[in-house]
Amino acid sequence: MKYLTNDKLTIVGAAGMIGSNMAQTAAMLGLTPNLCLYDPYAKGLEGVAEELYHCGFESSHITFTSDIKEAFKDTKYIVSSGGAPRKAGMTREDLLAGNSQIAEQLGKDIKSYCPDVKHVVIIFNPADITGLVTLLYSGLKPCQVTTLAALDSTRLRNELTKYFHVNPEDVTGCRTYGGHGEQMAVFASTAKVAGKPLASLIGNEISQEEWAALRVRVIQGGKKIIELRGRSSFQSPAYLAIRMIEAAMGGSEFGWPVGTYINNGKYANIMMAWETKLGKNGVELQELDGTAEEMKELDQSYVHLCKLRDEVIEMGVMPKISDWPSINPNLK
Amino acid sequence: MKYLTNDKLTIVGAAGMIGSNMAQTAAMLGLTPNLCLYDPYAKGLEGVAEELYHCGFESSHITFTSDIKEAFKDTKYIVSSGGAPRKAGMTREDLLAGNSQIAEQLGKDIKSYCPDVKHVVIIFNPADITGLVTLLYSGLKPCQVTTLAALDSTRLRNELTKYFHVNPEDVTGCRTYGGHGEQMAVFASTAKVAGKPLASLIGNEISQEEWAALRVRVIQGGKKIIELRGRSSFQSPAYLAIRMIEAAMGGSEFGWPVGTYINNGKYANIMMAWETKLGKNGVELQELDGTAEEMKELDQSYVHLCKLRDEVIEMGVMPKISDWPSINPNLK
Repeated sequence: MKYLTNDKLTIVGAAGMIGSNMAQTAAMLGLTPNLCLYDPYAKGLEGVAEELYHCGFESSHITFTSDIKEAFKDTKYIVSSGGAPRKAGMTREDLLAGNSQIAEQLGKDIKSYCPDVKHVVIIFNPADITGLVTLLYSGLKPCQVTTLAALDSTRLRNELTKYFHVNPEDVTGCRTYGGHGEQMAVFASTAKVAGKPLASLIGNEISQEEWAALRVRVIQGGKKIIELRGRSSFQSPAYLAIRMIEAAMGGSEFGWPVGTYINNGKYANIMMAWETKLGKNGVELQELDGTAEEMKELDQSYVHLCKLRDEVIEMGVMPKISDWPSINPNLK
Repeated sequence: MKYLTNDKLTIVGAAGMIGSNMAQTAAMLGLTPNLCLYDPYAKGLEGVAEELYHCGFESSHITFTSDIKEAFKDTKYIVSSGGAPRKAGMTREDLLAGNSQIAEQLGKDIKSYCPDVKHVVIIFNPADITGLVTLLYSGLKPCQVTTLAALDSTRLRNELTKYFHVNPEDVTGCRTYGGHGEQMAVFASTAKVAGKPLASLIGNEISQEEWAALRVRVIQGGKKIIELRGRSSFQSPAYLAIRMIEAAMGGSEFGWPVGTYINNGKYANIMMAWETKLGKNGVELQELDGTAEEMKELDQSYVHLCKLRDEVIEMGVMPKISDWPSINPNLK
């Protein structure tokens, strides 16, 4: 089997549904023969490792450990789905606090055990925040930490495909930026359906009401999976996250927005979905091309993300922004 | 994206854990852009389809239906994980009867709706029997229906890898034939560990007792997954089954034994794990190369499988063997 790289890839949270799917996906796509599975839940982790061994992958060295130091030793790539899920009785704030703290520890572990890691992809919720916290405490450069932010765009393509009864390849340029779900900014001006700009279809081939309803379906794409399957989405986040790390390894291009650190004057000290090129040198930011209205939507999305970030600062998980450079000089 | 074929592939049982993993695996490995998901459980099926749509696969036309006629129309390849799982209070015979009846219907549906199908892979338990029943009622040729039988061999490699602390590629030629699990025949003479024949290691570098214990671990590989993960194995059967259908499409070679119809005088009217080449023309049987003792083990495995088959005949799901050619002339 031909692999993309021999560098070590560590999957954090590998005992879970997303993590175990990521492990299988990484092995199947031939990313690296040097795959390490980490999870604090040792029993389930061993079960996932056994499943992969039973796949009989060729010349694939898959290891597993519940020792984070061992998991991160010499690793060059990390994908983490290792957050806590929302449990009964938990408030949104509880989840935010809990996963931000997990991200803080993750960042510190990266700094301690694998400061030479090349790229880290974060996919546990809320990823814009957990990615930001990880970036801060890891000491890595902004181009080295990304978050999964493609699902809103793929869900937009999916809903347009169904609405217009066309094939997936006939819907191009679907882009949402900024935050996730309700907070996303939909860039209808970049999307085309069968060659026609989506913006020109709205109000004509799709009424404003139907477009609004379609947007709601995009936002609730994850909720719908829970209703239909009785479990959270795991296949699509796992697949897309592995495609991101594949791109960061120098493999196939990742054709969707990614969550990345933005600090360009207009948008400051925030992680959000953006147009990027993801490659061996990490993230390269691209220009966003939107109408005035779309940029306004993005501004609103940014404001919302700032509030979330400031909540986490308020909680004491992150210091105030002026202190960030003392923790991570790359965030000057 | 480059696909192996444009022929339609139908995944039966796509709402389940194995089926949904197979669907994702087939899409990721680029088998065909023409992928159809079938399951009688419409709600869960839609959830799986949505997950795949959210993956944003390029130019992949994934359809789903709970109408078997639509699912099988013009299909050229089928993989079925669509059996019923064993439920509390169910005897082994209940499971055998229930899944044999499901296989009978599957075979009849193939005959009715897609007699021009090229290859069918069966993976629901007991696969040696459900595969045989499907073959009988489908009217297909023996070379066109195979069953998943690789897991014992991959588990043997896994246990040897762990026992001898070597890398997976250092353990070659792991082969079990005949039935599955306790009934398998292990061919230690074909296996090598770091270049040394396994047969020469047994009694030396691994004691007879340890070898017996290792064999038990191979047999209980599936049980161990349940203990560790709290759920049946699904990733490895899904992956291996898709690799089988990939080989049948003319893609990468499938390097493990497959379950196939054997009727060579010595072993008659039975489906069991065998050495084969699986390709565009279906299964080509290869010679088995074993010691006298191994062949004896295979004989015992065959006797056990015959008993199982005769139970199903006794139940009335299959007619007596002499009547098979009247149902499927290819079984003369």
